[in-house]
Amino acid sequence: MPTDPALDPSVAARLKRDEHGLVAAIVQQHDSGEVLMLGWMDDEALHRTLTEGRVTFWSRSRQEYWRKGDTSGHAQHVRSVALDCDGDALLVRVEQVGAACHTGDRTCFDAGDLGAVVGAGA
Amino acid sequence: MPTDPALDPSVAARLKRDEHGLVAAIVQQHDSGEVLMLGWMDDEALHRTLTEGRVTFWSRSRQEYWRKGDTSGHAQHVRSVALDCDGDALLVRVEQVGAACHTGDRTCFDAGDLGAVVGAGA
Repeated sequence: MPTDPALDPSVAARLKRDEHGLVAAIVQQHDSGEVLMLGWMDDEALHRTLTEGRVTFWSRSRQEYWRKGDTSGHAQHVRSVALDCDGDALLVRVEQVGAACHTGDRTCFDAGDLGAVVGAGA
Repeated sequence: MPTDPALDPSVAARLKRDEHGLVAAIVQQHDSGEVLMLGWMDDEALHRTLTEGRVTFWSRSRQEYWRKGDTSGHAQHVRSVALDCDGDALLVRVEQVGAACHTGDRTCFDAGDLGAVVGAGA
C-alpha cells in the first residue's frame, strides 16, 4: 500500500489542467445554491477534497495547499464534487461554516456587482 | 464618441487577468441557483456581456468570441454580473434558454459526479 496514495487514475485521466497543472473549482452552498467562491486545485488538492470530507485548494498566491477553515474556522464540508464536460472545471457542493470570503462576506461576490444591463429576452 | 467603446476603465482596473488576459466566468441560473457552466472572458467579452444583455465568452479552444446561443439557440440572458473579491472570477446570473451544455445536458456538471466522500462535519 502506498503511504501517500495519489488521485484515482481514472479521475486524473479526465482532467484538463492548465499550464500550471490546475483546474478551477467553483464552490457552492449545497442547499441554498449560493455560489461562494472560486478556487484552484491540482491533483493532490482534488484527491484530498474527494477523500477527506473537507475542501483543500492550491493557493496560487502562496504556492501551497490550503485547507479552507484551518486558520479561519470557516471550513467547507464536502457534499459532492462533479467534473464538467471538458474536464477543466469542478463544482464542489459544500456546507459552508460561516463566511466563505476572507473579507467576512458570506460569498466572494457579495460586494462586486458590476451594474450589467439586464437582458430583455426569455 | 468612440465607435467601439471599451470596457469601463473603472471595471477594467479591478480585473486580475491570467497570463492570457482572461478571467473565469461562472454562469448560474438566476432563480434555481443551478451552476450551469464555466467560461472565460477577456475585457471585450466582459464589456459585451455587461452591455448587450447576452453572455459572450472568449473561446480558448477556438480563439474567438463566442456569444452563447448564436449557433445553438441556447442563449444566456443576463440578470446580473458580479466580480469577486480578488478580481479574477465573475459570477454571471442568467436566464438560460434550453441546455447550457453542448452535450445537451442542462448543466456541464450533470454527468460528472466524482463520488466524493461526504464530510461528516456541520
